[in-house]
Amino acid sequence: MREFVLAGDLGGTNLRIAAVDADGNILSRAQAVTPRHNDGSQIAKETIRLAESCRSEVGEEPLAFGYAVPAIMSSAEGRIFSSPNLPELNGFDLRKPLSENLGIHVALENDANAAAIGENWLGSLRGHKDSICLTLGTGVGGGVIIDGKLLRGPDGTAGEIGHICVEPLGPPCGCGSNGCLEQFSSATAIVRIALELSSEFPGSNWVKAESLDASVVYLKGVEGDPLSREVFRKMGYYLGIALAGLINVLNPEAIVIGGGAAKGWELFIEATKGEIRKRAFREPAERARIFRASLGNDSGLIGAASLALDRARKHGSVRSTSPAD
Amino acid sequence: MREFVLAGDLGGTNLRIAAVDADGNILSRAQAVTPRHNDGSQIAKETIRLAESCRSEVGEEPLAFGYAVPAIMSSAEGRIFSSPNLPELNGFDLRKPLSENLGIHVALENDANAAAIGENWLGSLRGHKDSICLTLGTGVGGGVIIDGKLLRGPDGTAGEIGHICVEPLGPPCGCGSNGCLEQFSSATAIVRIALELSSEFPGSNWVKAESLDASVVYLKGVEGDPLSREVFRKMGYYLGIALAGLINVLNPEAIVIGGGAAKGWELFIEATKGEIRKRAFREPAERARIFRASLGNDSGLIGAASLALDRARKHGSVRSTSPAD
Repeated sequence: MREFVLAGDLGGTNLRIAAVDADGNILSRAQAVTPRHNDGSQIAKETIRLAESCRSEVGEEPLAFGYAVPAIMSSAEGRIFSSPNLPELNGFDLRKPLSENLGIHVALENDANAAAIGENWLGSLRGHKDSICLTLGTGVGGGVIIDGKLLRGPDGTAGEIGHICVEPLGPPCGCGSNGCLEQFSSATAIVRIALELSSEFPGSNWVKAESLDASVVYLKGVEGDPLSREVFRKMGYYLGIALAGLINVLNPEAIVIGGGAAKGWELFIEATKGEIRKRAFREPAERARIFRASLGNDSGLIGAASLALDRARKHGSVRSTSPAD
Repeated sequence: MREFVLAGDLGGTNLRIAAVDADGNILSRAQAVTPRHNDGSQIAKETIRLAESCRSEVGEEPLAFGYAVPAIMSSAEGRIFSSPNLPELNGFDLRKPLSENLGIHVALENDANAAAIGENWLGSLRGHKDSICLTLGTGVGGGVIIDGKLLRGPDGTAGEIGHICVEPLGPPCGCGSNGCLEQFSSATAIVRIALELSSEFPGSNWVKAESLDASVVYLKGVEGDPLSREVFRKMGYYLGIALAGLINVLNPEAIVIGGGAAKGWELFIEATKGEIRKRAFREPAERARIFRASLGNDSGLIGAASLALDRARKHGSVRSTSPAD
């Protein structure tokens, strides 16, 4: 019998499920558009449908299910406190319908924490004991690994690097603060900053509020457009401020950056490194190697698989008799 | 035979040494003004003199010597990278003359890290696994405890909370950055901010550049002086911005604040807590209890004693045969 787990990555746009073996090989995949509804039940239903599809494709029984979700949550209790991008999950008990219907243990984890675990297991962070993982997507997520272990904290909410304040009077953030890193270094921020700066760059008349997305800004930057270059410089500048602070406080060996907006790498990374050189102490700044995430879109999925494998090991690889766990 | 260690706390102004037993009781003390010279040899000499005085007062042999020093350093190697307030220690090998002359193992540690260890052992942080210790003095020092253990990182430089940027274009900092927390929430910053704001408060004509120190600003604040109140509000505001970020990233159970400038507690803490409420996620913000350091000036000394006891235990409580360690 082949040992494998189910792993999922829930995004604001897409929901992806895979069957993953104990070495991290992906055996089957299923994907759908994330269903939106006034509570989380449609998300649970669609997750179950895709999970069943992956399971039947492998034709055997998975050991557990690990699920990366975009939420502030307690992974220990499986309790979702809030999900800015999928507010129907606020307070929703997502674990219960999944474990009841799939009949296996379910481990939930914040998506950026799952990405950190994935990169630590099979990606850019392999072999590093103290590291930081950032995902630059719709928002900015983070995961901190200390002594080889994900830092969760007593509430399981640690790692929210996107909500470090980098500009006290900066743009309001969905979290209630102002000037969070997320307001400068996410895909959403790239679009907002391009619109804000467009009047200063009359030559860059491609900026149109209705159709703009971050990949358009990126493509213009690759062509050398000065507005786009300034947007990415600003993105990198604030990212460097946040990372310099983390380097001074955590002294990590490695920092890995993933997520869709990491595509702009060559347009922002010099500004980021410049701020780190200026603002962090020399020894830890020289120590901290900065990489792009090597698992691409699958960091969270692979991390979720790792968590499911841990869960299965903890329970002696037997199927759940208490589906609420 | 009574088991005890020597412990030291080196400050920019005073150098204090004590003999401390295994329960943290202080058996004897010696203190002197920190000697300034173009290299660290005078500091080493004075340290040895005071240590010998404490040793002879107890009349027995200490197990080891732990020393809290104001420096960015690798405690594992005993190597001092830089010391902004005592630049004669930059690159100086302080451990060697101490261990050679005292004939015992010497453990060096950054002073704020030592304070965190002291508060964790016998002070406000006792019983907390994940915590942060801040010392607001001439500069702002920090120590981070995760899972009951001081976070040092691969270079031993972790915990530099004073050098989190809270205002990107803020005042230049000795570290090379701008707008570090230290530039707003240290005793030095209190004086600078009072001078900066004095023209806006013509009624507060007690502000004189030549004689001003932070305790004067504090006493005026207690009397209700509006300039002083604004200085401490600003100090607390930026402290809250830094702490909110740390709460989002580390999810600590407790934060303890010590050092001379913590005396202004009732003048700054409301602004600090206000920023935390505004800027940190609700669950970790409610979790993080904020205390004043309970060991007062002795946090670093007690922490240094704890490190010396660890060192002695590691070496089986025997006297050093290899004095370089």
